[in-house]
Amino acid sequence: MSKNEKQVKEITSMDEDFAKWYTDIVKKAELMDYSSIKGCMVIEPYGYAIWENMVAILDKKFKELGHQNVSMPMFIPESLLQKEKDHIEGFAPEVAWVTHGGNEKLQERLCVRPTSETLFCEHYAKVVHSWRDLPKLYNQWCSVVRWEKTTRPFLRSTEFQWQEGHTIHETPEEAQKETMQMLEVYYNFFKDCLAIPAIKGQKTESEKFAGAESTYTIEALMHDGKALQSATSHYFGDHFAKAFGIEFQNRDNKPQNPYQTSWGCTTRMIGAIIMAHGDDRGLVLPPKVAPVQAVIIPIAMQKAGVLEKTNELKNRLTKICRIKVDDTEKSPGWKFSEYEMRGVPLRIEIGPKDIEKNQCVIVRRDSLEKTFVNLDNLETEIPEMLKKVHDGMYEKALKRRNEMTHEAHNFEEFKNIAENKVGFIKAMWCGDEACEKKSKEETSLTSRCIKDEEGSLGNKCAICGKPAKHLVYWAKAY
Amino acid sequence: MSKNEKQVKEITSMDEDFAKWYTDIVKKAELMDYSSIKGCMVIEPYGYAIWENMVAILDKKFKELGHQNVSMPMFIPESLLQKEKDHIEGFAPEVAWVTHGGNEKLQERLCVRPTSETLFCEHYAKVVHSWRDLPKLYNQWCSVVRWEKTTRPFLRSTEFQWQEGHTIHETPEEAQKETMQMLEVYYNFFKDCLAIPAIKGQKTESEKFAGAESTYTIEALMHDGKALQSATSHYFGDHFAKAFGIEFQNRDNKPQNPYQTSWGCTTRMIGAIIMAHGDDRGLVLPPKVAPVQAVIIPIAMQKAGVLEKTNELKNRLTKICRIKVDDTEKSPGWKFSEYEMRGVPLRIEIGPKDIEKNQCVIVRRDSLEKTFVNLDNLETEIPEMLKKVHDGMYEKALKRRNEMTHEAHNFEEFKNIAENKVGFIKAMWCGDEACEKKSKEETSLTSRCIKDEEGSLGNKCAICGKPAKHLVYWAKAY
Repeated sequence: MSKNEKQVKEITSMDEDFAKWYTDIVKKAELMDYSSIKGCMVIEPYGYAIWENMVAILDKKFKELGHQNVSMPMFIPESLLQKEKDHIEGFAPEVAWVTHGGNEKLQERLCVRPTSETLFCEHYAKVVHSWRDLPKLYNQWCSVVRWEKTTRPFLRSTEFQWQEGHTIHETPEEAQKETMQMLEVYYNFFKDCLAIPAIKGQKTESEKFAGAESTYTIEALMHDGKALQSATSHYFGDHFAKAFGIEFQNRDNKPQNPYQTSWGCTTRMIGAIIMAHGDDRGLVLPPKVAPVQAVIIPIAMQKAGVLEKTNELKNRLTKICRIKVDDTEKSPGWKFSEYEMRGVPLRIEIGPKDIEKNQCVIVRRDSLEKTFVNLDNLETEIPEMLKKVHDGMYEKALKRRNEMTHEAHNFEEFKNIAENKVGFIKAMWCGDEACEKKSKEETSLTSRCIKDEEGSLGNKCAICGKPAKHLVYWAKAY
Repeated sequence: MSKNEKQVKEITSMDEDFAKWYTDIVKKAELMDYSSIKGCMVIEPYGYAIWENMVAILDKKFKELGHQNVSMPMFIPESLLQKEKDHIEGFAPEVAWVTHGGNEKLQERLCVRPTSETLFCEHYAKVVHSWRDLPKLYNQWCSVVRWEKTTRPFLRSTEFQWQEGHTIHETPEEAQKETMQMLEVYYNFFKDCLAIPAIKGQKTESEKFAGAESTYTIEALMHDGKALQSATSHYFGDHFAKAFGIEFQNRDNKPQNPYQTSWGCTTRMIGAIIMAHGDDRGLVLPPKVAPVQAVIIPIAMQKAGVLEKTNELKNRLTKICRIKVDDTEKSPGWKFSEYEMRGVPLRIEIGPKDIEKNQCVIVRRDSLEKTFVNLDNLETEIPEMLKKVHDGMYEKALKRRNEMTHEAHNFEEFKNIAENKVGFIKAMWCGDEACEKKSKEETSLTSRCIKDEEGSLGNKCAICGKPAKHLVYWAKAY
């Protein structure tokens, strides 16, 4: 058995050690490599291609909604970061500081941006003068740095890739609408492109973004029952505008502070895909973002006509999906395992007997279901099968989420579920931070989001028994 | 006159003050804004859209040639940067140092990447084991930081956006071929997409990249007669591989060091466009990268049918070019000036009389030439006119370059040209750094590149009179 053949087999089972299963996948599918800087990773071509597909879809959507891309500096002067009180308190403990440029000590320290609200505000203060200048709907794709103590590839890293949208509006209503619109964009992207059914709701006071008036989130359930905060959208009111002196002449010719939002998603979404869909064979990639959507594996390829047919198919199918042929000397069995491990949605097998019958075998990665397909029908069958893979993945993830979501009416039930079952707990909450603290200390569960929905959970806080204000989703979180 | 109307008129004339003309354009066309960090800029939507168009074209080309995108950390530990002696000597004086993470002092300083050879080498040392692992053809799009003393928007900034390709090969020949191939990609991109005729050649020893065995460059001539180094491609031999311990088993099963290249281009290309094509009315953008390729300006738009026709045209033309309508309340004259200043390649004017005749007026930005075009023919005429604009811009730039390129046979001639005429000097060179120094000290001209071509320049160094080795292009440089 060659080194490569061994690699395919060596993924730790999910049930045995989930954390190791995760690390095995990111390494063996060649999504990333560690660097010598703690918490900073090399995103390798296969991992980066997933990110590029995500970026392409989201960037197009942002632009359709009128957003424009810009590029802000990667540094923030200390004095600028300090302008908004809550913001600096939230971020100061975790920023990297540049103190020297060349051989000279800087007069003022610069932090490497952990997020760019302050920079956008500084710019907006200069360019926004009249209601006619509003709204500005800006976004940037870049990397940011947060000095994390414990890091894990894609899930929590010192440096990560992301997009940050920053918008500024005439009225609070318009800014709030933008906040909710972008939350919806993320929610739909998870559903339609990542095949992940997320829970969509509002963060409690203690969990919201440093400086925001309100924070909205989508939370996705991972295979191990933990929740992953997957994208957030913030409404700032006019807090930042006041702190940074952004003022415009309104329609009544009076000076007024504008209203702002910010919203972001990150390479963490690659972690979400791995842990929402993966299995003991490896990755299972949603077709919309898979770097390779179908791989053709020739069988008995030394036989006359096989490679010719394979290449003919590749040329035909290049027009309808991201396709690859593996005609290396490795055995078909090795290749099957390899592309299963890499999560390629469809495997197309074709050998001499198939060619005789003008057919091929297509195997779905999500269900491992085999189908014989007439070669003349591939142009219609493959897009349909890719859609079936997507839908199958979504249904499976939704079923799991439903099975792993439990209701608790009181703290006894709450603790019982937290101990014996993993996943989301739906429970009423009084609105008091003390109850969030109690839950965290006694069960490790934190409030993931407020999501007021119809139900039979009563009107008492499941933790303290006092009158409840909201239905909250609780979970252990990444 | 409103503030905006004034803006359009306020560009300093090129002949009066070239530097101010440049700054006026970048500010008034809203390409960028200054930030509070010296030398770091905000690239605004219009400027960033030019960059996005450049990125899209180049990225596609790189991928067609087999390159894959990756993402490397933005930090480099001091010890890693120091591994290649020439490299650290070249870059150490101009890097930004991170010394603290959160509240803690780091055990080892990290520099913000000025370029990423060291990081790619560290990664390659881990993943390259056999000749079967080669070549690796990686590229990344990111920003880098060089602590510059004097900065100018797009031309020389502390932080700038770029791509850096880093490839690693089995043989020197293959690596050299890659180096030259990528130089050619840049040269053709300048010609075919930016309408700039660059000079393509090799850097002398004193001008080459820190750590390279040889550096190739394209140099473009700006309106003021200075040359702009516009993209570079480096061949490293196995210097870096040896310094970083990258080794692979070759086809004879023997350990061997591989051969490397790197190549890059930056947001400086936006500066190149401004200074190669701009005029006293403002920007002139090459159609291939212009964010708006054609702007429709309705005339007498309060008249019945004008706005309907305008929108109908916009919907038709959206499919064939990047098009915009300006139906704001400003006067047509104001709009003409505004979009000339912004360098939009084609202006489409349409009013009631035009509609009657089923025609419109199209004005080329490069030549200001007016053409009446039948509305039925727009789908064929517009792409053709965009091509004409491109070709016209290229021809004009080429003519200027030829007129501004002079030959010098001896130092008397060399100094005379340097004093009285600006542009390139073609002159023979002995290969001695002392002559480069002498030229720089006495004329401010530096060697831009070695470009051995047929000619009548004799075989003596134009500076010292000793036997010459190469024909060199000299110029004052940005």
